[in-house]
Amino acid sequence: MNDCIFCKIIAGEIPSTKIYEDEKVFAFFSTAPNNHGHTLVVPKKHSRNIMDMDEQTLADLALAVQKITRGVYEGTKADGVNIIMNNEASAGQAVFHAHVHIIPRFKDDGLKSWEKSMPYENGEEKGLAAKIMESIK
Amino acid sequence: MNDCIFCKIIAGEIPSTKIYEDEKVFAFFSTAPNNHGHTLVVPKKHSRNIMDMDEQTLADLALAVQKITRGVYEGTKADGVNIIMNNEASAGQAVFHAHVHIIPRFKDDGLKSWEKSMPYENGEEKGLAAKIMESIK
Repeated sequence: MNDCIFCKIIAGEIPSTKIYEDEKVFAFFSTAPNNHGHTLVVPKKHSRNIMDMDEQTLADLALAVQKITRGVYEGTKADGVNIIMNNEASAGQAVFHAHVHIIPRFKDDGLKSWEKSMPYENGEEKGLAAKIMESIK
Repeated sequence: MNDCIFCKIIAGEIPSTKIYEDEKVFAFFSTAPNNHGHTLVVPKKHSRNIMDMDEQTLADLALAVQKITRGVYEGTKADGVNIIMNNEASAGQAVFHAHVHIIPRFKDDGLKSWEKSMPYENGEEKGLAAKIMESIK
């Protein structure tokens, strides 16, 4: 897409710290890293998010994420790795070209998982589960 | 694995609110949901995390996550979805059977992405990028 910043990075029109490239994906350092080594993996084929991605692009992306995660883990000497995909603005997606964050984690690095819990009341999870199940095609 | 809580959920030995099941994966509601509809997708084949998962299991997992994400999105009338995989304890993994979180998001739901930023100094990202690239096999 002409106005997509990630398409421009893939095309080399905007500089990035490249980590990996093959026919299907391009990976580079986040410019706002949560930890050093925070890498974004981007399918070369433009999609908006996971929901409109074709199956082959998704399978290729998943395998590339695995390969690059192993590299980030070893190369940064991490203790753990978060793999995060934010879909749509309310989930924190800022660039609307589908991408996966690989964030190396280190003991006591100050990043915390969400502690907010939203327990269900009076069996209300059954109704919601049914609605989701009906929506899975 | 005999002592794995997710293997027991898959086998029906521990009850869960099931959302989806096919030959390869099992999905159910998190018992500590960050939002209502927070779903865990678990490959039936036991792996510890993304790093030791075989490629077929990973590809099957990715496609199931896409399918279930679409269902969660529609069934909860979400505005967005976070897809998160925590690998190892320092990344927040609590059950050591690989799994993916699908968390529906709603405007002003109070969950925030990490704001902590770790900028690189004096070109140090080049050296780290090189180490990661050498570690990608």
